[in-house]
Amino acid sequence: MHTILRSASREVVIGHDQPFCIIGERINPTGRKIFQEQLRANDLSRIHVDVAQQLAGGAMVLDVNMGVPLADEVALMVEAVTLIQSISDVPLCIDSSVIEALEAGLSTYQGKALVNSVTAEDDRMEAILPLVKRFGAAIIALPNDEFEIPLEPERRVELTRKIIDVATNNYGIAMEDILIDPLAMPIGADTSLVVRTLDTIRMIHDEFGLNMTLGASNVSFGMPDRETIVSSFLPMAMRSGLTSAIMDARGAQLVRAMKATDLLLNRDEWGASWIASHRARQAAESA
Amino acid sequence: MHTILRSASREVVIGHDQPFCIIGERINPTGRKIFQEQLRANDLSRIHVDVAQQLAGGAMVLDVNMGVPLADEVALMVEAVTLIQSISDVPLCIDSSVIEALEAGLSTYQGKALVNSVTAEDDRMEAILPLVKRFGAAIIALPNDEFEIPLEPERRVELTRKIIDVATNNYGIAMEDILIDPLAMPIGADTSLVVRTLDTIRMIHDEFGLNMTLGASNVSFGMPDRETIVSSFLPMAMRSGLTSAIMDARGAQLVRAMKATDLLLNRDEWGASWIASHRARQAAESA
Repeated sequence: MHTILRSASREVVIGHDQPFCIIGERINPTGRKIFQEQLRANDLSRIHVDVAQQLAGGAMVLDVNMGVPLADEVALMVEAVTLIQSISDVPLCIDSSVIEALEAGLSTYQGKALVNSVTAEDDRMEAILPLVKRFGAAIIALPNDEFEIPLEPERRVELTRKIIDVATNNYGIAMEDILIDPLAMPIGADTSLVVRTLDTIRMIHDEFGLNMTLGASNVSFGMPDRETIVSSFLPMAMRSGLTSAIMDARGAQLVRAMKATDLLLNRDEWGASWIASHRARQAAESA
Repeated sequence: MHTILRSASREVVIGHDQPFCIIGERINPTGRKIFQEQLRANDLSRIHVDVAQQLAGGAMVLDVNMGVPLADEVALMVEAVTLIQSISDVPLCIDSSVIEALEAGLSTYQGKALVNSVTAEDDRMEAILPLVKRFGAAIIALPNDEFEIPLEPERRVELTRKIIDVATNNYGIAMEDILIDPLAMPIGADTSLVVRTLDTIRMIHDEFGLNMTLGASNVSFGMPDRETIVSSFLPMAMRSGLTSAIMDARGAQLVRAMKATDLLLNRDEWGASWIASHRARQAAESA
């Protein structure tokens, strides 16, 4: 199944026969004090650096989140989307918990965006899915609802089915425009959580064939040597059916693990991409 | 299913609920000219260094291969096994294509050894399986025969079934003493080969529940940045059912990927082993 995203001039295809899709996650003020202050002062200059770094690291889509306390998130989203589309040609993922910010971002955006995110909560689906349909976007959907973030993979599959039913039947959204986030949770909190996520990915893949994405770094939260943990998680998740991840493309080890997995899973014909990226790295190191 | 190996004083358990078992692969003259010359001159001193390095890297079992052209492999195997058991307490994997070397190694060895390896060829099984039974050893079995190294996972499963039938019915070898090598082949030769190996691992796991091992570095042969390729392969193979690998424990990135995967697959309670190895590395770096 192919999820197609577009900017004004470029198309990105997410699918099980495609190279893994990195959704660059850095354009987000969460946990970044200086960036928060800059955004409150309506200074978006830092975004130039973030966009350049994410693209240099291999991001194919950029997640844009402007959630800053005590700032006008709606206005910032409009400015950020306009700015990023003026300096890059990759599709964007409009990321907010605020409906008005999603709507403002989508009306400004040129192309077919990804929306981050909806849950199986009835009121969230009622608010967000009409926007997704109206702007012809694709949507990231999380299988939790107002009652629980389920641990059992079977329950996550049930909530996934609920979202699919509502999105396709009530709003006419195409199956291929729904990306499921199977809920990556920190191994440090409970060492059984990642197996549950991997089982969820496999079950959603086998049952629905949908594309999936998740916040890759979540699994390593609170543990030492986080990049090695995530670099070992991604190959397992990709083999189970994960087709993209929201991740910081500046993580060189992580991006290399992802490219090696593309090669191993026969998604890099003749190993051409693997060999090219090795040569580029050698050239950069000897320059 | 638990495969138990023993030295004179130590037991190692291989199983799906156990930490991954590294079989250190360096005590082998293949491709090592200086070591070959030393062994021809009956100088086994290099083995002290190899054993120390493999153990320092985390090897839990040591593979011992003394196959040197124009040397007395049988005598060397006896000397090597005696030497290694005098300087370390880990179980050994007696590795040779020469029946007499296997027999000599096994008669010298104190404990329950692993034997590397038998195939589904009738004459190999007739020669090797009686030795395995006589010395109470465990055996690595490769699902190829005199006619083919099959590419199709289904055919590898058939040959696995043949070996299991012969080993258990004709020679009374226990199921848990059979480790299957699902045949890791180079991604550089054909980018579909590793998916076949992963499928084979999954099928053998689901059908027989046996432990498995393989030569991990094979998958990266001929490609640049081999360690990243193998570090991405191992998590997928472990998730599919691989429980040990013959690998060079000096590869720090590889060993860390393996330990991270143990953590992620819930085989490292509280993450204690992961955190301890991080602290040990920090201490070594600041020393």
